[in-house]
Formats: sequence, structure tokens, C-alpha cells
Amino acid sequence: MTTPEDNSIFATLESEVRSYSRSWPTVFSSASGSWMRAEDGRDYLDFFAGAGALNYGHNNPVLKQALVDYIVGDGITHSLDMSTVAKRQFLETFQRHILEPRGLDYKVQFPGPTGANTVEAALKLARKVTGRESIINFTNAFHGMTLGALSVTGNSMKRAGAGVPLVHATPMPFDNYFDGATEDFHWFERVLDDSGSGLNRPAAVIVETVQGEGGVNVARPEWLRALAELCRSRDILLIVDDVQMGCGRTGPFFSFEIAGITPDIVTLSKSIGGYGLPMALTLMRPELDVWAPGEHNGTFRGNNPAFVTATAAIEQYWTDDTLERSTAAKGKRIAQIFANLSDQFDGVSTRGRGMVQGLVFDDPGRAVKVCGLAFDEGLLAETSGPSDEVVKLLPPLTMTDAELDHGLSILAEATAKVCA
Amino acid sequence: MTTPEDNSIFATLESEVRSYSRSWPTVFSSASGSWMRAEDGRDYLDFFAGAGALNYGHNNPVLKQALVDYIVGDGITHSLDMSTVAKRQFLETFQRHILEPRGLDYKVQFPGPTGANTVEAALKLARKVTGRESIINFTNAFHGMTLGALSVTGNSMKRAGAGVPLVHATPMPFDNYFDGATEDFHWFERVLDDSGSGLNRPAAVIVETVQGEGGVNVARPEWLRALAELCRSRDILLIVDDVQMGCGRTGPFFSFEIAGITPDIVTLSKSIGGYGLPMALTLMRPELDVWAPGEHNGTFRGNNPAFVTATAAIEQYWTDDTLERSTAAKGKRIAQIFANLSDQFDGVSTRGRGMVQGLVFDDPGRAVKVCGLAFDEGLLAETSGPSDEVVKLLPPLTMTDAELDHGLSILAEATAKVCA
Amino acid sequence: MTTPEDNSIFATLESEVRSYSRSWPTVFSSASGSWMRAEDGRDYLDFFAGAGALNYGHNNPVLKQALVDYIVGDGITHSLDMSTVAKRQFLETFQRHILEPRGLDYKVQFPGPTGANTVEAALKLARKVTGRESIINFTNAFHGMTLGALSVTGNSMKRAGAGVPLVHATPMPFDNYFDGATEDFHWFERVLDDSGSGLNRPAAVIVETVQGEGGVNVARPEWLRALAELCRSRDILLIVDDVQMGCGRTGPFFSFEIAGITPDIVTLSKSIGGYGLPMALTLMRPELDVWAPGEHNGTFRGNNPAFVTATAAIEQYWTDDTLERSTAAKGKRIAQIFANLSDQFDGVSTRGRGMVQGLVFDDPGRAVKVCGLAFDEGLLAETSGPSDEVVKLLPPLTMTDAELDHGLSILAEATAKVCA
Amino acid sequence: MTTPEDNSIFATLESEVRSYSRSWPTVFSSASGSWMRAEDGRDYLDFFAGAGALNYGHNNPVLKQALVDYIVGDGITHSLDMSTVAKRQFLETFQRHILEPRGLDYKVQFPGPTGANTVEAALKLARKVTGRESIINFTNAFHGMTLGALSVTGNSMKRAGAGVPLVHATPMPFDNYFDGATEDFHWFERVLDDSGSGLNRPAAVIVETVQGEGGVNVARPEWLRALAELCRSRDILLIVDDVQMGCGRTGPFFSFEIAGITPDIVTLSKSIGGYGLPMALTLMRPELDVWAPGEHNGTFRGNNPAFVTATAAIEQYWTDDTLERSTAAKGKRIAQIFANLSDQFDGVSTRGRGMVQGLVFDDPGRAVKVCGLAFDEGLLAETSGPSDEVVKLLPPLTMTDAELDHGLSILAEATAKVCA
Repeated sequence: MTTPEDNSIFATLESEVRSYSRSWPTVFSSASGSWMRAEDGRDYLDFFAGAGALNYGHNNPVLKQALVDYIVGDGITHSLDMSTVAKRQFLETFQRHILEPRGLDYKVQFPGPTGANTVEAALKLARKVTGRESIINFTNAFHGMTLGALSVTGNSMKRAGAGVPLVHATPMPFDNYFDGATEDFHWFERVLDDSGSGLNRPAAVIVETVQGEGGVNVARPEWLRALAELCRSRDILLIVDDVQMGCGRTGPFFSFEIAGITPDIVTLSKSIGGYGLPMALTLMRPELDVWAPGEHNGTFRGNNPAFVTATAAIEQYWTDDTLERSTAAKGKRIAQIFANLSDQFDGVSTRGRGMVQGLVFDDPGRAVKVCGLAFDEGLLAETSGPSDEVVKLLPPLTMTDAELDHGLSILAEATAKVCA
Repeated sequence: MTTPEDNSIFATLESEVRSYSRSWPTVFSSASGSWMRAEDGRDYLDFFAGAGALNYGHNNPVLKQALVDYIVGDGITHSLDMSTVAKRQFLETFQRHILEPRGLDYKVQFPGPTGANTVEAALKLARKVTGRESIINFTNAFHGMTLGALSVTGNSMKRAGAGVPLVHATPMPFDNYFDGATEDFHWFERVLDDSGSGLNRPAAVIVETVQGEGGVNVARPEWLRALAELCRSRDILLIVDDVQMGCGRTGPFFSFEIAGITPDIVTLSKSIGGYGLPMALTLMRPELDVWAPGEHNGTFRGNNPAFVTATAAIEQYWTDDTLERSTAAKGKRIAQIFANLSDQFDGVSTRGRGMVQGLVFDDPGRAVKVCGLAFDEGLLAETSGPSDEVVKLLPPLTMTDAELDHGLSILAEATAKVCA
Repeated sequence: MTTPEDNSIFATLESEVRSYSRSWPTVFSSASGSWMRAEDGRDYLDFFAGAGALNYGHNNPVLKQALVDYIVGDGITHSLDMSTVAKRQFLETFQRHILEPRGLDYKVQFPGPTGANTVEAALKLARKVTGRESIINFTNAFHGMTLGALSVTGNSMKRAGAGVPLVHATPMPFDNYFDGATEDFHWFERVLDDSGSGLNRPAAVIVETVQGEGGVNVARPEWLRALAELCRSRDILLIVDDVQMGCGRTGPFFSFEIAGITPDIVTLSKSIGGYGLPMALTLMRPELDVWAPGEHNGTFRGNNPAFVTATAAIEQYWTDDTLERSTAAKGKRIAQIFANLSDQFDGVSTRGRGMVQGLVFDDPGRAVKVCGLAFDEGLLAETSGPSDEVVKLLPPLTMTDAELDHGLSILAEATAKVCA
Repeated sequence: MTTPEDNSIFATLESEVRSYSRSWPTVFSSASGSWMRAEDGRDYLDFFAGAGALNYGHNNPVLKQALVDYIVGDGITHSLDMSTVAKRQFLETFQRHILEPRGLDYKVQFPGPTGANTVEAALKLARKVTGRESIINFTNAFHGMTLGALSVTGNSMKRAGAGVPLVHATPMPFDNYFDGATEDFHWFERVLDDSGSGLNRPAAVIVETVQGEGGVNVARPEWLRALAELCRSRDILLIVDDVQMGCGRTGPFFSFEIAGITPDIVTLSKSIGGYGLPMALTLMRPELDVWAPGEHNGTFRGNNPAFVTATAAIEQYWTDDTLERSTAAKGKRIAQIFANLSDQFDGVSTRGRGMVQGLVFDDPGRAVKVCGLAFDEGLLAETSGPSDEVVKLLPPLTMTDAELDHGLSILAEATAKVCA
């Protein structure tokens, strides 16, 4: 994919594993709000937002001020799991504005600062609590690249990278996997209850409420409720991986609020730090907190600059429902435009929730072309789905309506060109 | 371990998994150079340095300036694996000052920003390249908490946390495991060459040159050379995990330089970012770079603030050999004091290299007591080893001689009290 | 289950694992045709036939004569995989009367002499040929107790006996698992073709055409054909485990003949030896015969007395279609009686093919009671299915109509008593 | 290895996996005592004895009479795990003449009738009892070809046949693995007791007292005692796999008697049936008999003809110490001749115990040549060891001195020719 004349140090020194730098062949220098600027002076409207890690936009000024003040004041930068003032402020803010108003009494674990790490912590804990090894995951799930997280991930190319057989996980059909043709949980429930089915009894189910990487597949609230009830009645733990869909992406802070369920374990990362700094949380019902001290550790659990921006983000955006309502409204705006495109062009459909929206092309090559044309017009949007057949939108939640309309018009034009 | 009156939010809201906050029951607020300050105004001299993540001290002013300038200037914060100006500057600096002068032609991968993640990437790559699953690790190794990294880690408490049997790894004796009684590699070489031994043929060997968490176990250069030769002659990849011992901890930038070997794959994290910000690298011989684009990914691969401080750290400390010589000198200073303690007290011995040094107590309880007394006197030092029998010193490499002497005198007094 | 007064050496010396001796608490001494005699002189009509290992009845006189002559004549008894006259005679007979008339060009492997061993050999070969690890099995499958065979077996109690997590196998729904509510292979086909499904690509599918132990679940010919086509089109090997259903149990020699398919690998055991002596075969398409000499071995591969009786059985029963037609006729006779019972009593249904027939009770306890009453009346019949809800009939294929009617009348009376 | 003109049905129809038929290219027809006869009329003296399955010779007349009488009298042939008269007679005889005189109170399980099956049963039981997965095996161990048994087997060619990574087993050095250079159990004991060693805590150790397939490696009684003590003190179960070395092969009935130890679990097969008929036993200390009824089953557990010959063999050979003394004497005779050869020729050494004796060639090709020449002279002997470097003698224990001398003289001549 690298053109022959690419003699940049990225092409010569960086590993072949690099990926986004191939789709977006430019060198970015600065960013602000919904825009990224390349060193050639071009500006790009960002409908990607760090794959969901920048829900509050690039270098959000409120968070930036808190961050700079903290660094300038020699606040603790790195602290493993020592107690720090910055961590206390985060914990207090998270409890007051996130957990308490939602009636959640989770304990909070700071695992390593990535999504994969909180998933690994969640899986380990579920296995330790139940004494069972097997995990149920869903078709087209994405949970991370470390060995445990990869074993519950669907993508076959990424799975093959493991180099060892991935075991202890069994995929089940995600909501609407059969286009409504088969009753929900028919297969899952049947094999769970049949002592001759050969299914190893699971410790936990791990689920995303909307599968972003998997193609913007949206689980209905009733499906999530039925899943929660299935887990509850069979004594299986329910893990909601809210790494990408949490922190307001779908509207409410937690994406599962829409279903009125309370998972046993919740994973958060990406936008929890607010500013794009590495941070992750594992939330668990208090009675599941059976960790021995130090049983799961990691050097960067105490990334205090991220605690500072995380606290500022909660205080700025989650003390009332302004952001949640705005996200719902903007989500509808995107969905409306996408619906128009879907009406207009054959082989185009749309799905999504809140500000994660997908434009789905029956011909996978078209989604890739649309994103390529959009890049040429100054818009960053990526594809997802097993065949890259979905143009996936994850704009900053703080994007203005004007920016949104600008970006959507670029996409509409690109779609028109590609589908003409 | 939590005292009954601990009603802090750390005790009530944070998971039981927290560990350092129990050993050091105070709340830290700010830090500078070799010192951490608690909110009660007490200062602590830091012989721990973020478990090796703060080789250049807390909030190092040179790095801090670069960091603040970058943030204030709205430099890109989060970029996954897109090309950015900050990444290019890091790559160029790393190539010019680290790789080229050492004659190393490694390709550079940016995995997720933690040590566990670069280890997972290294293991996956080794398995992909060789088509084999089995890895050789060493007794008392520590490589991380995710499932793949945990499988090559020795500590039985941490292994038990996996909740699944840890397989595909076979431990071999680290250097001096039998106190010199058995010839090096006698067992390893024999089972490798015996087609009836039952050892699955390994993809790779993963080794630390000094096992920090494992108890400051130091591999001799000749042992490392013999290991490298063993791997070479049997077509097994050699991975040096330099997450803790790299970035000058033992003197030279890479800890394996002392042995004159060139590993096939090298992992770096902890101090590579310079400022304690999450960052990691996986280095590989060019012909091993068989990754498909995106085959191993992760949200926080592009933590640009860390690239900025990493670049500044290399420019500040690795353009000449000042730091390396200073580390050697300070290491000798510590070793001398420790040797005195060892001479003075029964059941005390010492080992280390550069600025990782261990004071080993035959009675494990004594190491814990020494660290407790030290904390009371304003010194942070932690224990390591399978029974916490080693007081492990990892001071900032930038610590002054006066600070070093101050801390060592506290340790000497504590040792005297405990061994009296 | 052992009554307190059982001071027999079976109760005191034999392991608790014994099972049939508990259901049928008597001591058998001799047997002939369809009858077993206990040492107290009672005769039992055998509707069980060694779980399908005695298709030609007990101590069949034709086979017995051949066996005695061979032993008296000092024919080779034990020969591992050396060439022997008895093995040659078997191979020639098997080729002439079984393979050639059916247009099959299988190579023949003699694995260890049990069903589990031929299944293990089949799985190993499929993995070696394809280079993949994963196997697809079916709900309620039964393939044996060794670790590989157990991993593809459904019964949860037996799986738990493994003591290690059973991996590398994924269960799929057997025919009619959803009572016709879901289209065949909907789930299996979908996850195979979805590169994001998370299903490890399988080396092989292993299937029984009728699941005896699983509850007399009968796969329709069209389902088997669709399965064969699915495997063929996705380059997955199809293994038919004909250990229990082969050798004429369902009518034709191979149970898959009814579907007109040619599996890639076929396992045979149980009745292949004819006389109840341990023997097993693994059949494979010639191009799959990639074994290295001695790669799979075993001490009792060359059980020559079984070769002798196997040869005699083929010559006696498989040179024309008399037995096949008789089996079909008797199967109908049983099915008719069972259908009457099903009409007569609520909660009773029936299913089967040829001379494997099941009487299914909605209330599982009733099947156990029926078999208990039958034993009291001198009839041996066992239950199967995940909840022991099926009275499973496997009479000798050589049973006379009068014997069959006698046994069926005992079962009818028992059913009437239990369902009254 | 098949010569081009081999158009026999063995070459055309039987799988490439066949092995002995290649080393000994003739077709055997009958056998008696220590002799096998080929259909071309040639007689072969048998120093192989069915790989140890024919300790009492071929078609031993005493056993043969009992077998024929049983068959002619319509004794039960096949009975799964029902109680039968033949099984009771075996149990009583085994208890009276084998267990009681040795003070052993084992419970007796009848697993499937092969060595692999009793090993699988033993491993499953050890894992169930302890709740651990990991097993310790030894370099050059051989325990069978099914997946569980193969995982504890050393031979790399056979391991590769598994097609899945073999896990849950860790090899340790067998006695004298380092030619006496390293203290016994130095490595094993150290890693067991080091909580940082990375060794998964084992459920059991499985060991052969003499490794037949592995190259006639003999464990000293003191090594076995130390191993038993190591297991006892660390709460690890000790399994002695006596499939090949039991039933008098080394002198006493159980091969471990020489060390005065009592294993927790013992596996028997091969010669336990006496006549070469498939049969196996798993013996366990009574408190370990935690099997649920039917938890481990198998179709051919009740091979009654083998029970009959097993009973006759015990009555004939194990009611006094005649056979044991004779075996010791003959073993010395072989060892003496072998010692002479070793003295006479460079690069030849010898080892063994009782009537398992090995002639070891530094140049592996020579052992193969010696066996080839021996075959030409009418003697059957096979090689063993990881490089086939050992001529392994397993003559029937009932061989006469004259026969023994005849065979040994053939071997001596062949050795002389090869080493000249």
C-alpha cells in the first residue's frame, strides 16, 4: 500500500503494521475541536475522533487548561496505584456525577490504561469469581489485541495474528444476526440448558451494546434486557464492554442505560480520560471485588494527567443532561441525512445510535471509496465491518451543527459519486 | 491491610486490587526530581521511580517545558497510528541517537502504550514468524498481566489470577538459579536437542537481563551471550524484555549492550516516554517485520505528548555518554554501601547492575520491615522477589549524589534496626 | 446406588465408576444369540447388544467356529501392525464385499481397538492434513472418553471428568435441534462465511448419522447431504463416526449410505469385529493418508482373533442384502409398536432408523422406570439422551421376530404400568 | 520404505501409518511359545513379544485351554461393565495373588482395553481429585497416542501428529538424564518450591520405572523413592505407568516393588490379559476413587476372554516366585552377554533390568542394522530410543535358556558384523 516514492521515515523505520497512516497519507501537526491540521496547512474535519477516544474534541480548551495548570504546578504525573490528590478528585467526581445519580454502586479498578487491559482485567475477574474458564462473546465483537481480549474478538485476520489457537471463548449471534429470521437467544438458551450440548459452562458473557469495529451493529434494548435476564437466571456474569460506546457516545454516559440493565462488570477506556490521554477503568459490583492486592497490576495505572482531564470532562459535561440531549439530536440529524442517502441510492442502508452512525454499502468496495473521496475533500471518516463495508461516523460529541452539516455534505457528495 | 479507620474514598470506592497505596499510606500531591510530596506536606525521597518509569526523575524541567509548549500549542494529542510531526521527530531522534550509533537496524512498532502490550506484540510476532506456539521463559520472570504476558511470568499468585490454565510457555532456570552448582543451559540445551524430551519446539525465548520484579537477579554477560548463541544455533528467536532495564537503568541505553548481543526483538516501555507518560515500543529485526497492516492495533498507540517528552529525553540524555557514566558511578556507590551492610549483618547479601540494586535478606520479613521503616523516615523503596525478600532500589538516574547518600543512610539505619 | 448388603467383590474392589452393573444387578455367566444367562439361571433377552457391539448376537455360532478353529490352530493372536494371514484375509474380504460394491476407495488404518481410538486417529489426521486445530461437533454427540474424543462429546457430566478445559471444538445444532423452527445450517453457514464471526476455521466436522447415546436423534438424509456439501464447498473435512451406527445397525453397512454421501474419514469399531472382540478401523480417502510410518501406533492394533471373526461376519452377512432387508423390516416392526405406544400414552414419542429405535418420554424418570421394570421381566434395555429420557433399543440384528415381539410386549406392558 | 514391487494388499489398502510390517517384511501365520511362523514356513524367534504384551509367550497352552473352554462353553464375550462370572474370577484372583500378598489395597477400574486408555483414565482421575490441570512427565516418556496420553509422551515425531499444541504437561529429567552430572531432582524440587518459578502446580507425576520405548532407561530404586517422597511431601499424586514394565517384565509383578514404594495410581495393560488379548486396568488408592458412575466409560471394558486368560496367567505364574526368580536369572544372562559385547566393541553399551535389556550403540544406524541382520537370521528384535539407537530386548519371560542363547548368539554375530 506504500507508494514507491514514500521515503519518509514512517515508511522506512516504522513497522509494516501501521494502518491509518496508509489510509490518510499526510502528516498531522496540530488539532483543535473537530479539526486536525496537517503540516502542509490543510485542515481536516474529524468524523473519527480517535476511534471514539476524543468525544469532547481535540485539545478541548477547558480540559487543556486543567491539564496545563496541573503540569505546570508539578502535580504528580506517574503514580502506579498510589493514592494521589488527582486520583481522589477523579474518584469523588466519578462517584458524585456518574455512579450515584444512576444508582450504581460499582467498585472502581484502575487497570493498565488501555481498552485491552480493562477487558483482560474483566475476564480474569469473571473467571476468578466463578471458577469457570469459558466466555461467551458475540459475532463481530471487538475487544482488543492482547491474548485474552483477542480470544473474544471476532475478526479473523486479527485472530490469526495470535499465533496460538484462541480458546475458552464461544461466539453467539449478536442481535439481528439473522436479519430477524430467528428468535433471539434461541440457540444460546438451548445450548445453555441442554446438558448434552457440549457447550462449556460460561463464566461470563461479554458484549458491546453497539459494535463499532464490527460494523455499527446496534443491539436493541429488549435484546440487551433479555441477555441480562438470561445471564442472571443462569448465574453467568454479564460484562458490558463500554470502551467505545461509553462516555456519552450513544447519548447517556453508559450505553447500557437505554436498556435499564445493570451489568456485573463494565469496562471503560478511550474517552474516559477526556483529552485522548491513556486511561481505563474496570467497574464491578462490590461483591465481585475479590482481587487480592496486586493480583492484577501495571505500570501506567496511575496516569494522573488523564485523571485531571477526566475530572474536568465530567464536571464540564456530565453534571446535567445538556450533552446527552445534544448527542441525541445530532444523532438524529446524521441518521436523517443517512436515511436520505439510503433512499436515494440502491445498496445503501443505515444504522446507528446517538453519535455512532453507519452508512452501509452492499458493495464493500464503495465504502472504502467514499472514505477516500472524503479524505480528498478534507474529511476524516473510517470504514468498519468484517468487509469494511460500513462508513462509520464517530464525530466529537461537541461538534457544531454547522460542522456536522459540512461533513455530511462531503459524505453525501462522495456517496453520490461512488453510487452514480 | 486497610486499617479500620480508613474511610477514604480509596478504601471505599477503589478495588481491593490496589497495592502500593497500602504500603505507602499517604496521599501524594506533587513531585519534582527525586522527591514526591504528600498533601500533608511531607516530602519523600524516591528510590522507586515509578517502578523504573521515571529514570529522568519526576517532572523533569527540560521535558516539562517541551510538554507544556506542545500542549499549549495545540499539538496533536491522540493519533492512533497516523503520521504526526511529533512521531516523526521521535523516530528521527531515536534512529539518530539510539539505533544508528549502536549499529542496530531495527524496525519500530508502536504497540499499545504499556509493557504488557509490547510483550504481547513481541510474542505474537515471534509465533507468526516461526509458526510455533511455545515460548521459553525464565524462573522469576515478570512480563505483564495480560493473558499472553502472564503466561511467561513466574509469580504464582499473579498466574493464579488468570483463571485459565496458562499454557504454551515452559520455564527454564535463569542465570545462577542453582547458585553456580549446575552448568549453564545444561538442562535447556539437553531438552532442546533430545527429540524425545517432550519439549515443544519453542518459537522464542523471552528474557530480562536483570529481573527486577523477580528479585534483582542479574544475568552475567557470558550467560546472555551463551543464550543468544543457543537461540541462534537452534533457530529460536531471542526477545529481550527491556521494559524495566532499558533506557539506561543499568548504564547503557539497552541493557543487553553489556553482553554485545543483538536480540531479534526488543521491548521497551516505562522510561521510554521520559516523563512517566504511557508509551511503548517493539523493536524487531527488519526481516521479522511480517505484520499485515492493522494486524495488531490499539487506541493509544499514538500518545503524542509522550513522543514529545521521549524525544526531549533522548536529546537531553543520550547524545553523549554522560548519563551512562554517571549511572555506572552511582551504581557502584550503592553497591558499595550495600556491600558494607552485607558485611556488617548476617543474612544480608547484595546484587545488582547500574542503578538497579538489591539488598537481599535471608529472612524475607526483614526486607518488608526495612522498607516500612524507610517510609517512616521519608524514603520510598519497594521489595521484590518471590518472597518479597529483596529491598529493590530503582532511583531516578538523575538523582544527585547527596540525595543518594541521604537515602542510603536511611536504609542503612533501617537495616541496622531490623537486623540488630 | 449400591444397596447396603452388596458385599460382592464388585462392590468392594471395583471402582465406583462401574455403571451397568448397578442398573442390572445380577452376574452374567453365558450368552447365546439374543439371550444372556445369569449365574442364578435367569435368562435375559438382550435389546442392548453390547451397546451396538453385538450386531450379530452373542457367540454367533458361525463366527465362534472360525474363532475356535483359529485359536486351536495356533493362529497369530497379537501382532501390532505386522502383516498376518488373518489381517490379509480381513482386508481382502473388507475390500471385496464392503468397499468395492459401494464404490469406495478408502485406505484402511488399524488404530487401537476401541471407538475412542479411531476417533482420536481421525481427529489427528484431519488436523495434520489441514493444519487447523478446530473441530465442529454437534449437540448431544458422543465420541469417546479419551481427551481428544471427549472434547467433541456433548455430555456435560462426562466432559467435566476431563479435569482440563476442553477446547478446539465448537458445538453446532444437530438436525432438528430446534424442532424444525430454524432453517438447517443457518447458524453454522453464517458464522463460517462471516470473517468477523470469531469462529476458528475448522479442520473437520465430526457427525453421527444417528446419535445413539445422545438420545436416538436421527439426521435426515437431506440434512446429511447439505452438511456434506457445506464441508465440501468450504474445504472442511467430513468425518462420519460410524462406530455405533455402522455395520448394519441402521440397515446398510455404512449408515451414511442412505444419504448418498462419501465422507472423507469414517470411523468403525463396536460390531466390526463381529463377535464383541475389540477392533477398530479408520477409513480415509487415499489422498488424506499422509501418516508417517508409526506416527499413530498402539499395542492392540493387531487383535487377530477379531480379524478372524470380522472376516467371518462379512462373509456370512454382507455378501448379499438379506441382512439389510431384514434390518429394515424389523426396524419397521419396532417403530410400529412404538408408534402404537406413542398414540396410546401422553408424553411418549418415538424416533429411530433401522434397528436403533427410541421410545421418548417427556418425563425422563419414566424411561428409567420402564427399563427397570423390563429388567425384572427379563429384558435388557438401556436409556439414553441428556436426561436419560429415551428407552433406546439396539437389539442384535439377528434377533428373530418372535424374540423381538416378546421383548416389545414386555416394554409395552412396562410402559403401560409407568404411564397409567 | 515399501519396495516398488510390493503389490500386496497391505501396501495398497492399508494406511501408510503401518510400521512393523516394513521392518519385518513377511506375513506371519501362526505362533507358539517364543516362536512366530511366517506363511513361507520360516520360523522367527521372538525377542519382541508383542512389545511386552506377550510375557507368557505366544498361545501359551495353559491359557489357550482356558480360553477355548470358555469360548466353546458360550461364556459371556462382551459385557461392558456388567458383572460377569469371568470378571469376578479375575478380581478374586487378582486380589488374592497380586494385591493382598503385596499389602496393596487398590481399587480396580476397567478402562478401555488399551494402555492409552488406562493412562487417560489415570490422568483424568488425578486432575479430578486435585482440581489441578498440570502433569509432570519425564524426558523420553512413552504413554500412548490419544490426546491426553500423547501430551505426556516425549517423542517429537509422535507429538507432532497431535495437530494441536500439547499442553498441561511439563517434562522433567528422568534418572541419569545428565549422566550423573547433576543431583537428582535439583531442578524439579527447586521449581516446585519457588513460588516465582512459573511452573503450574502439578496434579500428578507420571513415570515409567524403565522407559522401554524411550531407550531402556532404567530408574534406580533410590531415584524412585526420592520421587515418591517428593510427591508425597508436596501433595502431588504419583502415577506409575506399568503398562510395559508390569506383569513381571522386570522380575516382580509390579516394577515398582524393587523400590518399596506405593504409587497413588498404577496403570496396567499389555501382558495383564496374558494371551495378548486387549485388556487394561487402572489401580488407585481407595480414597482416590471419586469417579461418578459412568463418568469414564468405553465399549470394550468387559473383554471377558481376556479376563479368563488373565486369571489363568495369574494362577499359573504368580502363586509363587518361580517366574520372578527365573526372570531375574535370565535377565542376568542377557546382561552378561551384552556386557561382553560392550567390552568387545567400541561405542556399545548396555542397560536394563530383568528381561528388558538394551544394547546401546553410539552410532544409531548400527542398532537398526543389527536388527535387520537379526531378522535375516530369524530373530525379531526392535530398536527404541529417540534416535533408534538401542536394540531393545523384550523376550517372553517363558523363553527357555536354549532359546535365549540362540537368539543372543544371533545378536552377537550381527553386532560383530556391524561393528567390525
